[in-house]
Amino acid sequence: MEKVNIEEKLTKFSDHWHPRIVGELNGQQVKLAKLKGEFIWHEHADEDELFLVVKGQLKIELRDKTIILNEGEFFIVPKGVEHKPVAEEEVHVMLFEPASTAHSGKERHELTKDKLDHI
Amino acid sequence: MEKVNIEEKLTKFSDHWHPRIVGELNGQQVKLAKLKGEFIWHEHADEDELFLVVKGQLKIELRDKTIILNEGEFFIVPKGVEHKPVAEEEVHVMLFEPASTAHSGKERHELTKDKLDHI
Repeated sequence: MEKVNIEEKLTKFSDHWHPRIVGELNGQQVKLAKLKGEFIWHEHADEDELFLVVKGQLKIELRDKTIILNEGEFFIVPKGVEHKPVAEEEVHVMLFEPASTAHSGKERHELTKDKLDHI
Repeated sequence: MEKVNIEEKLTKFSDHWHPRIVGELNGQQVKLAKLKGEFIWHEHADEDELFLVVKGQLKIELRDKTIILNEGEFFIVPKGVEHKPVAEEEVHVMLFEPASTAHSGKERHELTKDKLDHI
């Protein structure tokens, strides 16, 4: 039962493509992540995923278009939709998604994290 | 499949204590609201509720303490916990909660909204 300061939580890690859990509610998790470079194409068969940009710019490539998110903008990737996050410069994002969501969907990659920490 | 710009959505309404729905995912809704003054004491028996302050300061009174949220801070009110949001000056918040969540829990009040619009 404590509040969360997003900026303060973001000072606690610096690695990219490694989300941390900062809240849980109704079976969903709130995560923070720092992204830089390209992630892999993947999808989440059963989970919608929300990306909210806290700082910087994130491109979410879809198969038919690219969503460009600046600070204060969010996008919900519907379940089953292939997407590839790309950050030309470091971007800080907040994620909302079910606790069951696998980091890179059913794809495996050196960037894949199987277990995420609470901070 | 469109992105949402939070500031732009906030220009679309000005009334207080009347959340608008700006996103849906996994049975949850993302809402934006402008708050000023005091809401009523209420609880949500089955739903955890997240308050994220986008602008201003929000006090969330609980029976045993008060949470003070500034911009960039969030708090999750667990299900069953009585709370009363108070905004001395206007505050803009993002809410994240199940689509089933009643505005003022089981309490009825002139501020209660039974149906929320998507914007």
